[in-house]
Amino acid sequence: MQKSLKIAVVGSGLVGTLLAIYLKRAGHTVHVFDRSPDIRKIQFSGRSINLVMSNRGWKTLKDIGLDEEIKKIGIPVDKRAIHTGDKLNYQYYGKDGEAIFSLSRGLLNRKMIDLAEAEGVEFFFDHKVWDVTLSDASLHIGETERGEWEELKYDKVFGADGAFSRVRHRMQRQSMFNYSQEFLKIGYKELNIPANADGTHKLDKNSLHIWPRGEFMLMALANPDGSFTCTLFMPHEGDNSFENLKDKETLVAFFANHFPDTKEVIPNLVEDFFKNPTSYLVTMKCFPWTFEDKVALIGDACHAIVPFYGHGMNAGFEDITILSEIMQKHGDDWETIFKEYEESRKPNADAIAELSYRNFMEMSSKTADEKFLLQKKIEKHFSEKYPDKWMPLYSRVTFSSHPYSEALAMGDFQDGIMKQVLEMDDIENIWDSKEVEERIISLLNHK
Amino acid sequence: MQKSLKIAVVGSGLVGTLLAIYLKRAGHTVHVFDRSPDIRKIQFSGRSINLVMSNRGWKTLKDIGLDEEIKKIGIPVDKRAIHTGDKLNYQYYGKDGEAIFSLSRGLLNRKMIDLAEAEGVEFFFDHKVWDVTLSDASLHIGETERGEWEELKYDKVFGADGAFSRVRHRMQRQSMFNYSQEFLKIGYKELNIPANADGTHKLDKNSLHIWPRGEFMLMALANPDGSFTCTLFMPHEGDNSFENLKDKETLVAFFANHFPDTKEVIPNLVEDFFKNPTSYLVTMKCFPWTFEDKVALIGDACHAIVPFYGHGMNAGFEDITILSEIMQKHGDDWETIFKEYEESRKPNADAIAELSYRNFMEMSSKTADEKFLLQKKIEKHFSEKYPDKWMPLYSRVTFSSHPYSEALAMGDFQDGIMKQVLEMDDIENIWDSKEVEERIISLLNHK
Repeated sequence: MQKSLKIAVVGSGLVGTLLAIYLKRAGHTVHVFDRSPDIRKIQFSGRSINLVMSNRGWKTLKDIGLDEEIKKIGIPVDKRAIHTGDKLNYQYYGKDGEAIFSLSRGLLNRKMIDLAEAEGVEFFFDHKVWDVTLSDASLHIGETERGEWEELKYDKVFGADGAFSRVRHRMQRQSMFNYSQEFLKIGYKELNIPANADGTHKLDKNSLHIWPRGEFMLMALANPDGSFTCTLFMPHEGDNSFENLKDKETLVAFFANHFPDTKEVIPNLVEDFFKNPTSYLVTMKCFPWTFEDKVALIGDACHAIVPFYGHGMNAGFEDITILSEIMQKHGDDWETIFKEYEESRKPNADAIAELSYRNFMEMSSKTADEKFLLQKKIEKHFSEKYPDKWMPLYSRVTFSSHPYSEALAMGDFQDGIMKQVLEMDDIENIWDSKEVEERIISLLNHK
Repeated sequence: MQKSLKIAVVGSGLVGTLLAIYLKRAGHTVHVFDRSPDIRKIQFSGRSINLVMSNRGWKTLKDIGLDEEIKKIGIPVDKRAIHTGDKLNYQYYGKDGEAIFSLSRGLLNRKMIDLAEAEGVEFFFDHKVWDVTLSDASLHIGETERGEWEELKYDKVFGADGAFSRVRHRMQRQSMFNYSQEFLKIGYKELNIPANADGTHKLDKNSLHIWPRGEFMLMALANPDGSFTCTLFMPHEGDNSFENLKDKETLVAFFANHFPDTKEVIPNLVEDFFKNPTSYLVTMKCFPWTFEDKVALIGDACHAIVPFYGHGMNAGFEDITILSEIMQKHGDDWETIFKEYEESRKPNADAIAELSYRNFMEMSSKTADEKFLLQKKIEKHFSEKYPDKWMPLYSRVTFSSHPYSEALAMGDFQDGIMKQVLEMDDIENIWDSKEVEERIISLLNHK
């Protein structure tokens, strides 16, 4: 057991709140600060950005017995439903019974704060942290950035305050702090598929629906209330871009042209499109993540990624699992805990950033590509027959706890093999033959 | 002629001051703000970080007739003097008469501010700019960051406030602003070789002296007062590192071991080493560089690079040349001026960042490598015979005004050729033969 400390967590999002529960269970006094009001007291529509929880996230919840509680508000999603032209193809994510879970961010966050309060974590909403003194772990809190501030001293501060973290902002001014933020040329906007009158879903609720169109795509994930949250991803500028969808006529014609089958299911297209903001996508990397034994960053605050693998929350939750394991190893030696935590997590954060970035191409283009679908079919066939020889990349990332960095490296290795396999004569017809299997095995042995 | 505007330049360094002169000459009212006192009124020792001016920098000065004035305080440097073991090798930079110029930053900056004031530029020293309102080009100035601020409105603001630019800091909080800062594992510390009693230099003053030792190196550049400014570049941590040179004994033994020939010429080694700070090296990249027609970044504020090519100031001055050419083309259309400026300069800033980063390896390791010296010899021989066919990379960067991005690409192309040439049988003996020449020409034609 560690010596009981007074710890501040900045940010009451999913990672901050779950970290607070872990720290409380470890015997510490935990105060969570958030610049926003209590999310449980704000009206929000049933809709909200959707998240997917996969094995890594579940593990972190399960280790402290919270998984069953959360599973109740999630919808299992076991496949992609690919809408191309008038065809609808299904692509299963993993083996039978393997699924990711669609969750509403708002519902999940409310639930987690309830659970944290029940554990004895104290929350301070509407408290804006403007600055941090790193060397003595104190927070500077006030109404406005230029107004009066109050200083609150802690033993440790965790920055779980997201991609635009104020805690990181202070660390960023230290020498030897590496930092990058890179925006995608692609932005996104939310749309909505409402429930049927009887509360059922208009599309299969256990699928992640994708309308892949190359440079842009539409996506939909089910909500428990029968609706779907849709996300349109497309370039900010250029031919098919948000900039070019300026008026009602252009928008309606664009959807009729590219997404004809959505006409029936997205009734409020025009209203939602022009009401909802166009949002930005950024990859943020930095290092170090900690300052002496005083301050540590966690989740999006130190590794914000684009959403195309659905792993932002999962990676943040896995930070907590790893940190917690290291805490158990090193007791009160927080300097070692923080060093080992950042060194162990950094390569994996970089790997999931890369995988997420690449996955836009996979979702928006490759899912509509015959060759790619054939590759997936071969991989699935081979991995089902030889599960010890081949775990597909998606499964390794999503249904396993193997480090992300290992998944990235293995994925590249497997891709090299599949490239050669796809060049075999008549591969379209012999894809499930003994010959192909033997070829894969021989290439695997030449690692 | 452009419509006369009220323009603020933040930063009275070399780029800010020279930009101010250009803007004044273009008919504008120019105010330069600096958080520091007037450098002309501060005591500074004859020593200071040394700069090298090469063709790009000279061109910017020459275009407004300031080159002759500045040349008076510079020392031409036409070669590297490589100190390995007990050998001293000279490596000429270019053709006969081609040289870079060693200049003291302090002397140069004082001189430039004098020149700017003579033109009618107004300077506001000890004025700390803490923030900028981008949309109306106004500066927020005050004694302290948390104290009272005064707001000053301009038509345009230029951020020439260096690698830690406050102007950029504000832009960085905009969506779609890409940014990265990456620190080298290598730091540096200044040392000094004093003048002889009669004011002459202890080493050849027309050489850039290098003691290449692989992971670390010592460098020396002459000052007009007979002294040399030395810079020790080495890793912050590890085997041969600043961290490990903790006490007098270790330091003296380290220098005796690695730089025995400096014992005579660096008398105050111990005192200087422990008195002078260990400094950091950072590469900073960002984009965009401008905000609407209101604000633009220039020099280190938008492209801070490591010093190994001696091009930080030269690249900043070239920004001014290019901006000025574009101003002449587009009159009062500042939005177009700013767009074209950033789009034209960004690839070149990235290229000199890459070249500078690579040049540490060249200076610290390759200058002591026989194969590399042979390559340089072949290139020199061939380029002297066929000047229209081959301009060595260093010459293209330093003695030409070809875009940096072109220099980087051509350098890589030439390197590929030289790699093949160096593999020719008996190349050590046939390096200046007809056969080698023909081989190079044939490889050039297969571009």
